[in-house]
This record gives sequence, structure tokens and C-alpha cells, in this order.
Amino acid sequence: MTDIAAAITEIKALLGDRMNTSQSMCDLHGQNETHFDHMPPDGVAFPHNTQEVSDIVKICAKYECPIIPWGVGTSLEAHALPVRGGITLDMSDMKQIVEIQDQDLLAVVQPGITREELNTELRATGLFFPVDPGANATIGGMVATRASGTTAVRYGTMRENILALQLVMADGRIIRTGSRSKKSSAGYDLTHLFVGSEGTLGIITEITLRLQGQPEATAAAVCDFPTINDAVNAVIMAVQMGVPLARIELIDPVNIRAINAYSNMTYREIPHLFMEFHGSDVGVADQSESMKAIAKEHGGGDFQWSTRAEDRNKLWAARHNAYYAAKALFPGQLGLTTDICVPISKLATAIQETQKDLDENGVTAAIIGHVGDGNYHALMFSDPNKPEELARNKELAHRMVERGLALGGTCTGEHGIGMGKMKYMAAEHGTALSAMVDIKRAFDPQNIMNPGKTVPMN
Amino acid sequence: MTDIAAAITEIKALLGDRMNTSQSMCDLHGQNETHFDHMPPDGVAFPHNTQEVSDIVKICAKYECPIIPWGVGTSLEAHALPVRGGITLDMSDMKQIVEIQDQDLLAVVQPGITREELNTELRATGLFFPVDPGANATIGGMVATRASGTTAVRYGTMRENILALQLVMADGRIIRTGSRSKKSSAGYDLTHLFVGSEGTLGIITEITLRLQGQPEATAAAVCDFPTINDAVNAVIMAVQMGVPLARIELIDPVNIRAINAYSNMTYREIPHLFMEFHGSDVGVADQSESMKAIAKEHGGGDFQWSTRAEDRNKLWAARHNAYYAAKALFPGQLGLTTDICVPISKLATAIQETQKDLDENGVTAAIIGHVGDGNYHALMFSDPNKPEELARNKELAHRMVERGLALGGTCTGEHGIGMGKMKYMAAEHGTALSAMVDIKRAFDPQNIMNPGKTVPMN
Repeated sequence: MTDIAAAITEIKALLGDRMNTSQSMCDLHGQNETHFDHMPPDGVAFPHNTQEVSDIVKICAKYECPIIPWGVGTSLEAHALPVRGGITLDMSDMKQIVEIQDQDLLAVVQPGITREELNTELRATGLFFPVDPGANATIGGMVATRASGTTAVRYGTMRENILALQLVMADGRIIRTGSRSKKSSAGYDLTHLFVGSEGTLGIITEITLRLQGQPEATAAAVCDFPTINDAVNAVIMAVQMGVPLARIELIDPVNIRAINAYSNMTYREIPHLFMEFHGSDVGVADQSESMKAIAKEHGGGDFQWSTRAEDRNKLWAARHNAYYAAKALFPGQLGLTTDICVPISKLATAIQETQKDLDENGVTAAIIGHVGDGNYHALMFSDPNKPEELARNKELAHRMVERGLALGGTCTGEHGIGMGKMKYMAAEHGTALSAMVDIKRAFDPQNIMNPGKTVPMN
Repeated sequence: MTDIAAAITEIKALLGDRMNTSQSMCDLHGQNETHFDHMPPDGVAFPHNTQEVSDIVKICAKYECPIIPWGVGTSLEAHALPVRGGITLDMSDMKQIVEIQDQDLLAVVQPGITREELNTELRATGLFFPVDPGANATIGGMVATRASGTTAVRYGTMRENILALQLVMADGRIIRTGSRSKKSSAGYDLTHLFVGSEGTLGIITEITLRLQGQPEATAAAVCDFPTINDAVNAVIMAVQMGVPLARIELIDPVNIRAINAYSNMTYREIPHLFMEFHGSDVGVADQSESMKAIAKEHGGGDFQWSTRAEDRNKLWAARHNAYYAAKALFPGQLGLTTDICVPISKLATAIQETQKDLDENGVTAAIIGHVGDGNYHALMFSDPNKPEELARNKELAHRMVERGLALGGTCTGEHGIGMGKMKYMAAEHGTALSAMVDIKRAFDPQNIMNPGKTVPMN
């Protein structure tokens, strides 16, 4: 029998003021970045270490109280909203770097540290953590949602960059998965099972990450194209030829307009590719020449180079702010973003059909994409006073998913399932969904770990 | 109640002659490559397609009959021995290439195809499947054991090279995991859970693999070193500097002697690194220069280059036959091999202490290793008429595992758990083993899927 009040009382005895039930604190943790309704939890707990997380979970298990981990709330699919009430576990006090092992190119961190904080600390070591979803998300949140972003084309997603995890299971048991060795064949791959499990199977309390050496040389360039199709076809050729691009981002004319306004840039309002090359001096020159030839073959303009670090930072800050830039272009409107990822050979088809559908419905969307991975987003906006506009955008998003799945892709390349995409789990996974349900039931029989997310349990 | 005879009768009605219970066929499937006892199954079934696998599994579930998938039997840890009797599922009739999608750099294959057969078929496409464990294993077996080998340092293990799977679960349900898109955040990562599950969670019936483009340039070189420590330290520096070696293999003097005899080579009987470089012409030259400088710094001799494809093939054939070469050096003896993998910074320590332990016990072992991954093998031999020698070798192997775990490594980098390493699962995984048991129970409540392997269920 669920008794959230009793759980809060008992956790208060454990944490004191760090078990916070004030209206303002609950409101802060009931927000989301997109169109979902505000939904405050019953209380917010701030654990300081793994043992406290374990103790809290044991109390929650006793009272069947839902428990929802929280990083910094940058989810686009309402991962951290307490749909059945309960306690939000704010991990912001657990943000230590436990260890940096530069010889093994790894770091051990707590989940509450953000990727920018981590990379700032790493700067002196000559190493960096490459996964970059744009938002300054926490590493814990990035693990939980299997995040990726602009550099995944070269360095992989969170899936490829986590060596080991420490977790608290639904009964309070503390486990460690994986090891520090680069590979292992020792039993079931629990680490990958928890990466992307969105707080529904266990709570991440420590993460062992793979790091990369800072490349000897880095160069960034921008190139415009007559049409989106030309830009996408250039990317497809580059991927198929194996050019080891570090970043290759498509920005459509709407988002270029938004970026120009928001980040004070002066790009022509036509499709662009933003690119980055990493390697030795020789390697970067080699890659750049290959990419210039490919771009030219697809009608691309001249490359505008950013060789100085400060220019590159400005370029990528503009790209990272693309979501906020697009929101600023449609002030006061509700955003809805999609996250289709398809096999690279299907990318041009997927984007063309999406653009056609948007045009036919008179919707101006901003399309951007990590196109080297076959991943793109369409940001659509609606007047909060016109629910029919949100409904129309949801219909458009629905058709994008159907199209993506029909092309052999996924309903979400990097944002995750959360609440927003649960309805597509059956369509995407078919009978395999039953195996996911089996795992959820085995690990969390009371369904207290972020219930109502990821895997539909009915 | 287990009734294997009834299961066989019912499967015979389904498969006819393809349900084979002859002594010779059962004996063939009771063999193993190392020191485990001969252990024939009650019968061997040869399915032709996924539906037949599903039908067979349903019959086995009805009679609680163990079912053990079989590739070509190259396991070094007795993965395919029927410890509780039952039916071996020989996948050799399911070896089709279902599809090659060159634009998306992927292929869909049935599990019974071997990696050499696959690469022969791929040759005309300009693509190849990079994972190379030496033995001409089946792709299904390689998925099941999370195999890797000489090229993992550059291209990753089976873990990094499988996009999607089709499987038959313990109740006969057919599921598909993953998709063709390069990345996804859509729910639990079932694909990685089944990669390395050794037939204990489900039977793999179709595999979607990532392919690589044939590199523009390939060069192979051999370099000798005064001591193993020098060679290992050169590798550690190369890995830490990010030299993108395609292969970097350590061969100790004992194995050099074996290779010289077996493959008709004339290497000096001192430690060697066998290396391969892939990339553009410029890239390969760049990597080679870096590696030459590193080798020189660690006392390495001149590089002996194999630039012609036939010389490279001879070189790698010699390396691949190292296990058989070592066996030939100790004719009639029982082999026991270890498979430690440690963080790269601990590799020199691990190998030194291993060598010391071997020396102190007067055991001549052949040490080889995929040292770029921190992975090495010590092959030890014993007189089959002197069980005390096998016992001594097992003790040595045991101490190597303890040492590897203490250094943050794993008891198996690539061979898998099978029967041989089950006793180390608790030591390596601690409380996380209970989560593996939970998954096994949820997926296979009757414990009919390759019972007695991977996860101790008592």
C-alpha cells in the first residue's frame, strides 16, 4: 500500500533539511523543457552519497513510494516528472570527480556533475569527455537517457563511453557493473542494460567514463548548400567513404535565421553544414580535403574556417543554442521536438518527406540534425492558447515516427522515451517489448523506480 | 519433470533425420578444444530456420529438456558441453547471408556462417567484418561469447559491432532487438544483453552486423624487443598517445619458437610485436612513423614490413595459428589457456607477475596477447597422465585471475565464462551477480537454455 507521507517522514529523520517538501522546491522539480504539464513531486531529497541513496530507496520500497532521479532537468521527454507522485531524488549534491586515471583514459564521477564541469576539471590533463548533447546536462542524466549529440559520429554515444556503473537497485542493494578493463566477456552486460534505462531499473550513483586525448589539431568549418537534400547527400557520401568527421551538423534555413538572431551571426538563410575535424595536423588536412571535394560535388559553397579556438567556441555555442534560438524565434509558444534516427541511406528520404508534410500543413519547423548518425530533429511550435495547434504538431510528430520506423529507424535517437515516446515502444520493438517488461518486473517488482516511464507496464 | 527422450521423439516428428541421435554425431558434439571431459548430448538437432528453432524450443520447454546452441565448437571454455544432457542445436544449416546493405555498412546473417565465409562473400563489396578472434568461429558463436581478437584495438569487439538480433526465447517467442539505425535511446538495450549471454538467455537466429570499408592502405610490421616489459611499455605508450593501430599483438619467446616451427618462420626467439596499420596512404605513413619512434624509445629493433597482401596474410596466419602452434610444441599434452584483461596501465605489472609465478613453478607457458586492449593469454600444458600437472596449471590460472581482478580487470577478456570461469563470477561481479541471476530467472524460469553455464544458479 503506497504511503508517500510516511516515506517522507522517515526520510526526513534520515536527511533532515535535505528532505525538502516546500512548495517552491517541489515546483522547481515539476517543470519540464517542452510541452508537458507542470507536475510537482511530493518532496525532493538531496542525498550525499551512495549509502544514503540506498537508505532512501529502502524506505521508499517499504512504503511503495515512487522515486524519481533528477539531474538538472534538461530532458525533452519529461523523464523526471512524477506521474504517480512520490519523491524526486535531486543528485546535485553528488557531483564529485572521484578519480581521474589519465594513463587508462578514464574518470570516475558522481552522477550530479555536468559535462561542462567535468571538462573544465579535465582541461589540465589533456583529456576530455567527448559526448556533447548541447545542453549542459549531468553525466548521470546522460547515462540514464543514453544521450549523444554533436560528437557521436566520431566518439560514439553514452553507450560506447561508459565502462562501469555503481547503482542502487529497487530493494536498496548496491551493485557495481562492468570493470576498468577495456573489454570483458564475463557474463551479462549489465552496464549497457542500465545505460538508457531512465531511472526505471536502478539509480546510478557512480560512473566510470572513457576519456579521449585532446586532438593534436582541431579545425571547424561551415559550408552552405543550395538545398537540404544536397547537404544530406554530401554527409551520406562522407559517412560511406569513412571520413572520420568529429562533428557534422545540418542546420536548415529556419534554424539559421534563429541562430543569426540569437547568436548574432550572419549566415545566409540557406541550409548549412557545421563541421569539425580532429586528428594530427596531417590527418586534419587530409580529412578537410576529402570533405571539401565531397561538398563541392554536391553544390556546397566555400568552407568558412574557424581555426582559432575562440571562433570555434562561438560556432559551437551557436549550434548548441539552436534549440533556445528556435524557441526565441517563436516567443511564448510551446515547443515540440522530434528525434528520428534512420539508417544513413534513408536520411534524405526521411527529411524530404518530413519537410513535405510540414509544408502541406503550413507548419514552420526548425530542422537540425546530427546527420552523420542519421539523426535529425524537427522543432515545431504552437500557441499555448490554441490546443489544436499542439494537437496538429503531435500528429506531425507521430507521422515522422511512423516514417522513421518504416525506414528501419528508431523513434528516438538520443532524447529517450520518458513519457513522450512510450506509445511507440510496441511499434518499435514488437514482441521484444515483453522481454523489457520481464526485466522491469524482475528488477522492480513494486514498480517504484520512476514509474510510468520507458516501458508500458499495463 | 525433465523428459529428454520425449522431447527427442517430438522433435524427430518435426525434423525427421535432422534430429540425429547417432553415437558418432553426439560424440562430435561432446568435444571441446581444451581440457574439459568429453560430454556428448542426447541428440543433435539441425534447424533450417527461425520458426523451426522456435518449435524446437517450445517442445524442449514442454519437457524441460536442456537445449545447447552449437556453432563450430571453437570455444575454449566448454560453452557447448551439455552438462545436464539434452539437445545440441547445431546451427550449421543456418548460414545464409540474408542481406548486404553496403550503403549503410551493414549485413544481416544467420548465426551458422563463419567469419571467413562472411568475409569471402563481402570481398566484392569493398567492405569487411573486422572482428577476428583467430579461430574461424561462427558469427553466432562470436555474438554469444562477445568475442574479439586481434583487431578489437581499432574496431571494437562483438559488443561494438552488432546492431540488431533476432532471437528465440525460452518459451519459443521470437523477438527482434535493436534496429538498423546507428544509435537509439528507445528503451532497454536488449541487444547488448544478449551479446555475451552464451546461449543462456535465448537462441540467436539472425544477426545484423556493422561492416567497415576496406582501408585505402594497409601495412603490417614486426618488431622485436629485448624484454616483454619493453614491448608492453611501447604498446602502453602507443595506446595512451592515441595511435590508431589496427592490430598490435605481443608474442613471447616460447610462442615465437612455436610459430617458427609450425608456420615455417625465422623470427629471433625474443619478444615480438606484430602490428598492422589501416588508413589512407598519408594516415598509414603517419601512424607508422609514430609507432617506429615509440618502439625505438623502448629498445625495439628495426621494423620488418609486410607490404604485399600475401606476406601480410602469411604473417597473420602465423599469428592466428599461434594456439595450434603452441599445442604442437607440446604434442599430446592438455592445453589450459587464460584470458586476463586489465586496464592498460596495469598490463606490464600483470604480465611480469604472471611470468614470475610461472618461472617459480617451473612451468613453460606461451604468452600472447591483444595487448592494445590490455588482454593477454598464457597457454599452459600438462601431461594427460599426470593429473597433478593439470591441477598445478589450474592453480596458476587461478592466481592469474586473482591478480587480474585485483588490478581492476576481468577474468575473461574475450573467451567467455562457459563452464571454466563460472567460479569467478562472484569474485568479479560481487552483488551484481544477483542482478544477472534475476535476469536469467526472468527469461528462463525452467533453466533449459544452456544450463550450467555463465551464471551460477544455486
